[in-house]
Amino acid sequence: MSTRPELLGYTAPLSPEGRAGLVPRPPWHYVGEMLVIEYWADPEAVAAVLPGPIEPHPDPGRCAAMFVDWQSCSDEGGELLDPSRSQYKEFFIVCNGLLDGEEVTTCPYIWVDRDFALARGWLQGFPKKLGSIWVTRTFGLDCAADPGLREGATFGGTLSAYDRRLAEGTVRLERISGDGPTHNDPPIHNVRYFARLSAGDHDRPAVNELVRTVSRERSVGEIWEGSATLELFGGPTDEHDRLAPVRVGKGFRVPFAYTVDDLVTVTEL
Amino acid sequence: MSTRPELLGYTAPLSPEGRAGLVPRPPWHYVGEMLVIEYWADPEAVAAVLPGPIEPHPDPGRCAAMFVDWQSCSDEGGELLDPSRSQYKEFFIVCNGLLDGEEVTTCPYIWVDRDFALARGWLQGFPKKLGSIWVTRTFGLDCAADPGLREGATFGGTLSAYDRRLAEGTVRLERISGDGPTHNDPPIHNVRYFARLSAGDHDRPAVNELVRTVSRERSVGEIWEGSATLELFGGPTDEHDRLAPVRVGKGFRVPFAYTVDDLVTVTEL
Amino acid sequence: MSTRPELLGYTAPLSPEGRAGLVPRPPWHYVGEMLVIEYWADPEAVAAVLPGPIEPHPDPGRCAAMFVDWQSCSDEGGELLDPSRSQYKEFFIVCNGLLDGEEVTTCPYIWVDRDFALARGWLQGFPKKLGSIWVTRTFGLDCAADPGLREGATFGGTLSAYDRRLAEGTVRLERISGDGPTHNDPPIHNVRYFARLSAGDHDRPAVNELVRTVSRERSVGEIWEGSATLELFGGPTDEHDRLAPVRVGKGFRVPFAYTVDDLVTVTEL
Amino acid sequence: MSTRPELLGYTAPLSPEGRAGLVPRPPWHYVGEMLVIEYWADPEAVAAVLPGPIEPHPDPGRCAAMFVDWQSCSDEGGELLDPSRSQYKEFFIVCNGLLDGEEVTTCPYIWVDRDFALARGWLQGFPKKLGSIWVTRTFGLDCAADPGLREGATFGGTLSAYDRRLAEGTVRLERISGDGPTHNDPPIHNVRYFARLSAGDHDRPAVNELVRTVSRERSVGEIWEGSATLELFGGPTDEHDRLAPVRVGKGFRVPFAYTVDDLVTVTEL
Repeated sequence: MSTRPELLGYTAPLSPEGRAGLVPRPPWHYVGEMLVIEYWADPEAVAAVLPGPIEPHPDPGRCAAMFVDWQSCSDEGGELLDPSRSQYKEFFIVCNGLLDGEEVTTCPYIWVDRDFALARGWLQGFPKKLGSIWVTRTFGLDCAADPGLREGATFGGTLSAYDRRLAEGTVRLERISGDGPTHNDPPIHNVRYFARLSAGDHDRPAVNELVRTVSRERSVGEIWEGSATLELFGGPTDEHDRLAPVRVGKGFRVPFAYTVDDLVTVTEL
Repeated sequence: MSTRPELLGYTAPLSPEGRAGLVPRPPWHYVGEMLVIEYWADPEAVAAVLPGPIEPHPDPGRCAAMFVDWQSCSDEGGELLDPSRSQYKEFFIVCNGLLDGEEVTTCPYIWVDRDFALARGWLQGFPKKLGSIWVTRTFGLDCAADPGLREGATFGGTLSAYDRRLAEGTVRLERISGDGPTHNDPPIHNVRYFARLSAGDHDRPAVNELVRTVSRERSVGEIWEGSATLELFGGPTDEHDRLAPVRVGKGFRVPFAYTVDDLVTVTEL
Repeated sequence: MSTRPELLGYTAPLSPEGRAGLVPRPPWHYVGEMLVIEYWADPEAVAAVLPGPIEPHPDPGRCAAMFVDWQSCSDEGGELLDPSRSQYKEFFIVCNGLLDGEEVTTCPYIWVDRDFALARGWLQGFPKKLGSIWVTRTFGLDCAADPGLREGATFGGTLSAYDRRLAEGTVRLERISGDGPTHNDPPIHNVRYFARLSAGDHDRPAVNELVRTVSRERSVGEIWEGSATLELFGGPTDEHDRLAPVRVGKGFRVPFAYTVDDLVTVTEL
Repeated sequence: MSTRPELLGYTAPLSPEGRAGLVPRPPWHYVGEMLVIEYWADPEAVAAVLPGPIEPHPDPGRCAAMFVDWQSCSDEGGELLDPSRSQYKEFFIVCNGLLDGEEVTTCPYIWVDRDFALARGWLQGFPKKLGSIWVTRTFGLDCAADPGLREGATFGGTLSAYDRRLAEGTVRLERISGDGPTHNDPPIHNVRYFARLSAGDHDRPAVNELVRTVSRERSVGEIWEGSATLELFGGPTDEHDRLAPVRVGKGFRVPFAYTVDDLVTVTEL
């Protein structure tokens, strides 16, 4: 064996200086603006996507859909001044369930629009695919192009992937929220999954574990709430429309920040 | 001649219902966050891009570079709830000059990342090309992923086109600005230009006129200012690097809104 | 007046060296692979998009839809070795009509995926918007990933814009074609259109003329033909679905090359 | 435990019908056109990226760079008729080494432009990141926009990622090749790598194994060869420029097809 120096980095590609990896080393710091739409899907469709030991929630079919406009960075990567490496947008659905009697959520489907966010998600068990996500913004000026944060202001979100529209939602602000959204509140439990390619092992993944996300430094800005709409559209490579709303609850706009550098494995699947 | 109904719309493609045109009918309402970097380029390089009757400015080489994160809409297009039709990012340079003794600016080079903004620019005389532009954002939360609006916060902007990095800039906030930027303040005068393709007419454009932009409903949010950096990189299809800074002045972050539905033709060129 | 040197180039932005313009100076050389789908739309819908003096065709509703995978270049731009400046994909519809008794076509709707092709189209009267277009390819190898050029091989094309699927088509090869497609054969007549923004002039375009395209150095490779499918989907900013097929004819796969550096103005509109 | 049906699919997201996974179940069939540029980098730089037990090659610094234009599909996914799910472009470098005395290659750096190809690569140990890749094409017509397959025809490839140009290469055809390229010929050995996020485990990946790719149904079309150029450019998140050429050998254009549904694990790392 040679005495070559070790390759460095957190994800592939490892490299001599450790700068080439697709995902910088944790911690990862996030700040964003979320549209949260609380809704209920067909309870059987929700039960069908609960992984492993997660049981249906007593409020059958409880879900939330989120459109999020994110900025993120690591401690040393310089992403904030090269913002193509820090900004991305995201759409995801969480379903509510019970794990050992505790209320939890799980994310069956999620799309982001940048590769670093895609891979960072896989490492946390978010089953991310690439998509095109857009979310209405406010800039704090009172003008026709800015909905503002006021009663009657309406924010929209859209998702497409592989050149098909897959989701649309709106939130119409009515009041500053007291408690904020609850459908996305329980701790999220995802499946970390990494398949094998060896012949005969295609159904024996190398990694298949239920994990509980851990975050810290969470902070929330002023939350507005109001009425909401949500439509989910299927396609040849997407099944999230099975989770289409049978009833839509309240919508929220939530400024949100947090930091991630940990994860807890709950069980092998 | 038939009695077919007229085709409707503001730009091509005109269509039976008038919904298909690339650019919706004015007025166009804009809101955005601008990084403005005041600087001075080589005076001869600036003189070389002043169109027609615009003479060099007494402060030789005075320019500004802007990275802007925009949201825009028309009166009836529903763009704000389908935000892929309302949001875009932009980088442009303005050069200062004199027109009949009056201080003016002109935009020799500009890039945007969406087609509706490209065409809307052409109609105003902005010589837009497509590029990829990114600008650091603040979300109003005190966290590691958000520079915030405070002394020492630094915002960055980048431009690339045809897979080459073409510009990078930063603005480091130091204080709330008294007067805001001045290099981009004089009324902007652009060249509306639409070439002919008929043989022999390739150098006889169908439209070639100096126009003065007109806007209304202008509003400005809280402006911060501080130190700045700017680098411009050339390429086989770009000459903006001839306007690279020989001296960089102050940088600003400016929330800005306005409305456009008019233009004044100054002279044929 | 100064004695500044003239700004150079074919389109904006004109520049000191003439390299910065979005579209290089003609001639423009094209080569590509076209899927051509002959079909008939509702005759009234077709009549409604025929510009100016073009009258309905005696074969009512005759149209063609094309998905094209292009490579193009100018004489001196070096595009072929920097292929992000030479390759683009396109979807367009042509409708058949009569102009002074002569069979002609006109293009009411067209999408491309690159800015240089967008602007080059406007100059020829093609009312281009940006979209995402994909077309099945053959690489000449006999394998599962290559449909090949043989009986039963099927090629597909798709179009989306603003995150919505707008068109899908297929061509199933059955035989080498004798005559090739005819619905797209008559000389194409488009509307060159460039709007005004001055108040009161929004409906008085600066350029609005019916033009007849001129091309030279045309060559065609081996054409295959067979059965075809076509679906057109509307959206808030698109009306091409009014031209959806009521009957689909034959489909063709056509390798095609030509050169453009001329155009004939037929009439002001 | 419930008796819920199992979730189906090959990669995340697993789903009730098994259609939602980012990567369809193998086999995966590929066909493409490759530009292969044989070259030599600094031997120490090459040694520094050889994983685990791979030793430097007796021909020090031997590498190849490839620009590839791919079309791929699975057995049942319908990708060929929805070609946004089948086509992608790729740039990668392979370095030559010895494994137990056998000549092998390894891929330290690779970029693709679509998410399904990114994830499919990760499963094979290709450390893929997203980039923008372009490759000159031939369409088989004798015209100015088509280099053709003939002496003197020149093909180019480019790579960019995060808005920076990262590589450029050209191949000038001189003759039909006898043996084809050799620098990329030995069996490729990559590192399958999947990090952990649990605190304390950031440097203890869940998967870190040297694997040998396995393919079948390989076929090659007519290979041309000639002279070549290659430039590699670094950036804040890329170290492939350490493998920049100190000498460039021959270039090749290779039509290529193969099928993958297997992989051999050589050793844990």
